[in-house]
Amino acid sequence: MNQRYPSVLLENAVNELASLPGIGRKTALRLALYMLRRDVSFAEGFASALVALRKEVRYCTVCHNICDDEMCAICSDPRRDRSLVCVVENIKEVVAIENTGQFRGVYHVLGGIISPMDGIGPNDLEIESLVERVASEVVKEVILALSTTMEGDTTNFFIYRKLAPYHIQVSIIARGVSIGDEIEYADEITLGRSIVNRTNFSDSMKGG
Amino acid sequence: MNQRYPSVLLENAVNELASLPGIGRKTALRLALYMLRRDVSFAEGFASALVALRKEVRYCTVCHNICDDEMCAICSDPRRDRSLVCVVENIKEVVAIENTGQFRGVYHVLGGIISPMDGIGPNDLEIESLVERVASEVVKEVILALSTTMEGDTTNFFIYRKLAPYHIQVSIIARGVSIGDEIEYADEITLGRSIVNRTNFSDSMKGG
Repeated sequence: MNQRYPSVLLENAVNELASLPGIGRKTALRLALYMLRRDVSFAEGFASALVALRKEVRYCTVCHNICDDEMCAICSDPRRDRSLVCVVENIKEVVAIENTGQFRGVYHVLGGIISPMDGIGPNDLEIESLVERVASEVVKEVILALSTTMEGDTTNFFIYRKLAPYHIQVSIIARGVSIGDEIEYADEITLGRSIVNRTNFSDSMKGG
Repeated sequence: MNQRYPSVLLENAVNELASLPGIGRKTALRLALYMLRRDVSFAEGFASALVALRKEVRYCTVCHNICDDEMCAICSDPRRDRSLVCVVENIKEVVAIENTGQFRGVYHVLGGIISPMDGIGPNDLEIESLVERVASEVVKEVILALSTTMEGDTTNFFIYRKLAPYHIQVSIIARGVSIGDEIEYADEITLGRSIVNRTNFSDSMKGG
């Protein structure tokens, strides 16, 4: 039903907050009233951080991770092993894997996953640029770290076939992550171990 | 543990979002990445609605409800019965009661509830202004619609004693709302009925 608010300003703020995913109108009202209890500087700092993120954000020209410069902190870090490329769906998964502290290679962010249901095909993703990276850089191994869903499996297989001509090692993270789970929700120990215990992609095909 | 983010802009946005009540760091990250997927105009509209709320909001000089002018839409509505004043803890409860469509009187927003544990005493609330309203306006009945908690009971009793000299009807919403529940979470039917079936405050004392 249509809620009525005593103030247009409040109604606008609630509408904006409730347009975020997972935020209902009651939660939005609580958040708006919380804003009112804080200083003006809190609302201003909050607002400017979000606008700055959206307006000033850049994407790494190498791995398509979010960054503040031309190249992300991971790609430009000389201690990272650039011959080891971990393929992930999105930025969330980079954050999740970085937090395990188990991976010393670099990333390749696809920007999504092959999903015919959502109209997302291979050309909507950064797959061609991954192939170019493998072709032009000294990549020894590509680790596939996509969600263990049907879409993830499809994308894994598509990338595996695309990389086949280059005769590099293509690994897949150990399926310690339960089937059907999303990478970002895996606990850090399971996720870290699945990076360490990664298996050869063609071996995993025989198993499945 | 301390999460690491690939971008300072992202980290700032996550920090701001996670400072809201009930928003954890994973949810904050999801919301920040959602912002990135939307247009710049979405982030700007979102930000400006929150800043406008905080900077431009006003409070009704009569009932202390949030409003856009000197007097709120409820207090300035000639169809509302100004002799019937419903006392609530906060703006959230005004929204909740308005949404029942069962109340045609006006409100008085206390801005909190007496809570010695949180250091909130009667002088921190709009109780004196309620007494002044009762003394100067033609108020026939005051309905106490505070949460059915110990703090709510304390505040009810304090207000009841303050209003005793004016010999007006002091009612309390029917305790259809289960004991220990907060007003804002009551379903609309229960809440609406509890407004209609309000009982005389001194009678409810005998019952309790």
